[in-house]
Amino acid sequence: MTTKIKIGIVGATGYTGVELLRLLSNHPNAEVTAVTSRSEAGLAVADYFPSLRGIYDLTFQTPEDAGLDRCDLVFFATPNGVAMKEAPALVEKGVRVIDLSADFRIRDIPTWEKWYKMTHAAPQLVSQAVYGLCELHKDDIAKAMLVANPGCYPTCVSLPLLPLLQAGRLKANAPLIADCKSGVSGAGRKASTHALLCEAGDNFKAYGVGGHRHLPEIRQTLSGLQDHVSDGLIFVPHLVPMIRGMHATLYLHLQEHTDPEALLREYYRDSPFVDILPSDSTPETRSVRGANLCRISAQRAPDQDDVWIVLSVIDNLVKGAAGQAVQNMNIMFGLPETTGLTNAPLMP
Amino acid sequence: MTTKIKIGIVGATGYTGVELLRLLSNHPNAEVTAVTSRSEAGLAVADYFPSLRGIYDLTFQTPEDAGLDRCDLVFFATPNGVAMKEAPALVEKGVRVIDLSADFRIRDIPTWEKWYKMTHAAPQLVSQAVYGLCELHKDDIAKAMLVANPGCYPTCVSLPLLPLLQAGRLKANAPLIADCKSGVSGAGRKASTHALLCEAGDNFKAYGVGGHRHLPEIRQTLSGLQDHVSDGLIFVPHLVPMIRGMHATLYLHLQEHTDPEALLREYYRDSPFVDILPSDSTPETRSVRGANLCRISAQRAPDQDDVWIVLSVIDNLVKGAAGQAVQNMNIMFGLPETTGLTNAPLMP
Amino acid sequence: MTTKIKIGIVGATGYTGVELLRLLSNHPNAEVTAVTSRSEAGLAVADYFPSLRGIYDLTFQTPEDAGLDRCDLVFFATPNGVAMKEAPALVEKGVRVIDLSADFRIRDIPTWEKWYKMTHAAPQLVSQAVYGLCELHKDDIAKAMLVANPGCYPTCVSLPLLPLLQAGRLKANAPLIADCKSGVSGAGRKASTHALLCEAGDNFKAYGVGGHRHLPEIRQTLSGLQDHVSDGLIFVPHLVPMIRGMHATLYLHLQEHTDPEALLREYYRDSPFVDILPSDSTPETRSVRGANLCRISAQRAPDQDDVWIVLSVIDNLVKGAAGQAVQNMNIMFGLPETTGLTNAPLMP
Amino acid sequence: MTTKIKIGIVGATGYTGVELLRLLSNHPNAEVTAVTSRSEAGLAVADYFPSLRGIYDLTFQTPEDAGLDRCDLVFFATPNGVAMKEAPALVEKGVRVIDLSADFRIRDIPTWEKWYKMTHAAPQLVSQAVYGLCELHKDDIAKAMLVANPGCYPTCVSLPLLPLLQAGRLKANAPLIADCKSGVSGAGRKASTHALLCEAGDNFKAYGVGGHRHLPEIRQTLSGLQDHVSDGLIFVPHLVPMIRGMHATLYLHLQEHTDPEALLREYYRDSPFVDILPSDSTPETRSVRGANLCRISAQRAPDQDDVWIVLSVIDNLVKGAAGQAVQNMNIMFGLPETTGLTNAPLMP
Repeated sequence: MTTKIKIGIVGATGYTGVELLRLLSNHPNAEVTAVTSRSEAGLAVADYFPSLRGIYDLTFQTPEDAGLDRCDLVFFATPNGVAMKEAPALVEKGVRVIDLSADFRIRDIPTWEKWYKMTHAAPQLVSQAVYGLCELHKDDIAKAMLVANPGCYPTCVSLPLLPLLQAGRLKANAPLIADCKSGVSGAGRKASTHALLCEAGDNFKAYGVGGHRHLPEIRQTLSGLQDHVSDGLIFVPHLVPMIRGMHATLYLHLQEHTDPEALLREYYRDSPFVDILPSDSTPETRSVRGANLCRISAQRAPDQDDVWIVLSVIDNLVKGAAGQAVQNMNIMFGLPETTGLTNAPLMP
Repeated sequence: MTTKIKIGIVGATGYTGVELLRLLSNHPNAEVTAVTSRSEAGLAVADYFPSLRGIYDLTFQTPEDAGLDRCDLVFFATPNGVAMKEAPALVEKGVRVIDLSADFRIRDIPTWEKWYKMTHAAPQLVSQAVYGLCELHKDDIAKAMLVANPGCYPTCVSLPLLPLLQAGRLKANAPLIADCKSGVSGAGRKASTHALLCEAGDNFKAYGVGGHRHLPEIRQTLSGLQDHVSDGLIFVPHLVPMIRGMHATLYLHLQEHTDPEALLREYYRDSPFVDILPSDSTPETRSVRGANLCRISAQRAPDQDDVWIVLSVIDNLVKGAAGQAVQNMNIMFGLPETTGLTNAPLMP
Repeated sequence: MTTKIKIGIVGATGYTGVELLRLLSNHPNAEVTAVTSRSEAGLAVADYFPSLRGIYDLTFQTPEDAGLDRCDLVFFATPNGVAMKEAPALVEKGVRVIDLSADFRIRDIPTWEKWYKMTHAAPQLVSQAVYGLCELHKDDIAKAMLVANPGCYPTCVSLPLLPLLQAGRLKANAPLIADCKSGVSGAGRKASTHALLCEAGDNFKAYGVGGHRHLPEIRQTLSGLQDHVSDGLIFVPHLVPMIRGMHATLYLHLQEHTDPEALLREYYRDSPFVDILPSDSTPETRSVRGANLCRISAQRAPDQDDVWIVLSVIDNLVKGAAGQAVQNMNIMFGLPETTGLTNAPLMP
Repeated sequence: MTTKIKIGIVGATGYTGVELLRLLSNHPNAEVTAVTSRSEAGLAVADYFPSLRGIYDLTFQTPEDAGLDRCDLVFFATPNGVAMKEAPALVEKGVRVIDLSADFRIRDIPTWEKWYKMTHAAPQLVSQAVYGLCELHKDDIAKAMLVANPGCYPTCVSLPLLPLLQAGRLKANAPLIADCKSGVSGAGRKASTHALLCEAGDNFKAYGVGGHRHLPEIRQTLSGLQDHVSDGLIFVPHLVPMIRGMHATLYLHLQEHTDPEALLREYYRDSPFVDILPSDSTPETRSVRGANLCRISAQRAPDQDDVWIVLSVIDNLVKGAAGQAVQNMNIMFGLPETTGLTNAPLMP
């Protein structure tokens, strides 16, 4: 491949935006040619993000000035509600789009509008969008014009569940509990009191117990796999005083004679970014810090024949956002899935 | 009360020891007269713990030199396996003892020996010991010579469950899940790689998934309350990158027409240290930092009729250790339960 | 004292406000009777700050409705620019005021207006205000109607310098360097990107190198003590990824045959809140966490005859703000200086 | 280059070891062929460091079994005192060595022995070793058999000072102050109480005020550049509650009409890993997290004509240890200096 993919990033001032810039700087087949931000237009990217000094010689532009339609691919790293307005025109001009926001993730428009409290601006495009959980929809992603990049919790929860549901191994009518924990970067980079170091630091709490936007997304992902099992999903997110990282503790009622580790291993045999640990292991979030990986382990609950504890970790900004977006890009452009994504996690 | 309770602390160089010293410095009816440490004998407490400069004018002594038998009460803040050897002689001489270690918590000796991997040195005393969960065993504690101060997880998990089990409201044959999260101080103050800032910081993980010593303790506490329900308890502890604080997320199958908030409120009506929050609240660990409190909330899982999510937070070093020990002391010596324990939590 | 001091707190939704509430809840001679917040009027204090549930049964009111003029003392825990507008009317009615903001700290109005970028609304009151550095101005504080509570950096830097300057022991024409480090709570509780856990966490940086508002305040405090020495003060603040705590590292050129430790010890002989450590000690911020203390040590720089390294730590929210304010209250109302301020620091 | 450099790492269980493994996994011309650890011999590297699962298929061996003499280059990532015993035999056999410990850094043996409290085992080799501060000794490094990789503080302090001293711009007889701050990973990975999360977390303190091993190393590096100026160096290290990162705040007396920014820019014109910021900037440690970079800024102290504040940041494990070691390797083997070292810093 001699020419590089010309890439635009819309809304690159947040954490998923800067993470895309970091990952793409290491990608041999990609060249970021346009970066937009209405509020920072005119400012050099390297002045806004000193970590990128010497790496990018780009300036933020308004979306209007940035010539996004000359890109091969545009990433939206914008708040919810932006991509649904701006992506359609690009797709129409033949520019492929990966949206890291939630705008195109939920197929049922009323459900989306209920959870996101907005009227959807491009309902017709939702049905064309491919849900970019790479390990599940690889073939469709390869052909997609518009990919809805999955949420962090849906990625962390769905990856360990897919093989077990697809094999039909969950008990019917039993609850399926996902007790999830996220680092604070999941809350984004905008100023807010609850994400201050003095509020979120040295503290632990649940949130969204009464309902979280990622619940319908997880249910949709899992819904077709084993009849109605995902209806019993209980999902409680918690906030961990750390920057990056996400951990799901799943409590599953599996049918007798199920070997979840073997099912997971088989399902992800050819998946370079899903790592199945031995059953006595407990994956820790730092083991994937900065890397596009999901590590999973499964073990039986002590003294409980049919309950299994499945643990899953990702870096919420990488496999849970920007890394999976680059993985989607690789699939869409026919590149090896691991291109630009092989760096080792940062430890410690 | 004109004379103060004369207090000895055995093994005061760890976190529960220094927390006892902090709390007792604020107690109007207690005077610490002896502090022991074999390794630090001869060193002033205020030199070892600079936070206590100007507060204590005491020197660490060996247990032999400390004159513990002249105390009214001796706290053991020692590693497991010490109190069972040293407490019996004190009790025999009429010195009352509160043991913050696990030595006297488990009534069934083989169970204790299996989990603590030691031969018990004073099995005869175990049956005399009162399990010091103040809200459950207040009357027995008042008369006890020897109190086994509960573990942090058992306190955090049992307090929200007691009222529901006592009312017989859990469904039989349903799992009872306690997904628990602890700050790192629960690991104690001894040098160990896994508790280093660079290992435990900016990281989240489960541990002890295959079995944790606090599981039999929780089961014992709950066992008499509702037939066999506690047999279904699944307990997974996790390590949170913070210093103090413990959070339990309980997933309970309650019988129809149960109002857990009302049951909790009624049960703890006269308990000054258990605070029931409104059902749409999520208690956070920092809301009890440094204080002898347990805050609890309960709400129904979205879309699940019979599953309830009950959240419980304590400071693992206070209500989970030294604070509950002082509460036990107050009860044993006929003082108002809140004496010396009314300080507000430290926020932020 | 049978009646309690009736206290109002204006602007109690920030960190100094909640810290005042915490400290005053433990004060035997004070009763908070009014708490104001325009934005939170009507909300219970215990709903806003769950750490205060069960401790305060008060509701935020607007300043107009709160009856502040029926208080004996009003604390302003407001952003800069509020007290200068609202305090004069209270003082006129005979209500004593302690202002924790910067409005009355700087005697020279043009200097204040330059650094705080506002026109001062009550310049006539500035000259009547007493600068509430308790260890320096105790007698004036006792009689004051209006106390300007010092800034955190000025407290941490001035306390170790006062004895040395007053004794005239600094070399003339030599720089006096204060390399200072603060926890993030010094930035307050309002939403801002730079104080997010994901921005300030796991990070260290200097700020305000080109000039900081606390520099003129420190210079004013020190100016009368030894001719022109404070003109050479260089002050560089840094942000530390922790919640509470402030550390000053001072590099001082002292005249020959000076024993700074002896001078410090003598000066603070009767000061219960200033603790001079042995010269080979290094105070750490957590040794004063939550307590109204300043700990100081001094030692000669290796291989440098006349340069001394003086270290000073405070909790920026206590001795650097709310604790010193309560200490000022005690002095103003003829109470023992330590009333309500004797709690031990929280460790760990 | 068709064949890869065959690399051995001695003592790869610590933080510099795992960081070398991380960086080398991304290096196109290097292949780690032997990794030694006496304590972990027989264990797979990926089992010991789960972050390296799927990246390394190597097993720890004893140094005797590892065949280190078949390597082209051996890194010592060992505690002080090991390389001086084991490196000589390798060098003699023609294996090039980069020692990340302090064994070969100090040319004056009695000075080394005083600070490191050991008898040096290979004094004859010290004079042959090249001090691997790449920006200062590039030509010698290219030819060296044995490189002494610099300490983290010496790197962070020396890089900003070199250009100013070489230009002779410091005032004579004036103090030169380096107030330095380090993340906790600088203390290494071995179990120790003071580096526990509960001891080092939410805390700030100075240490080694009376003398630190890195002081003679810095003085040696700077000694030849401007007469006797380095004799006046005062160096105070502090511990920051973060994992990675190092920050130096230098207070320099520069001669009139000196433009330090221009001197720095000129000196490092061709240095890809030293970044000079505009003078009103304050570099933050996270802007170099995980990357082999030093960022520096200089500005005049407010109101002080001749005092300049120079700020310098590195990642202590990268440019302060493993990254500089790989940079040294690149120079030694004639590779472009940036090979394998171009990854962007991890932000946030």
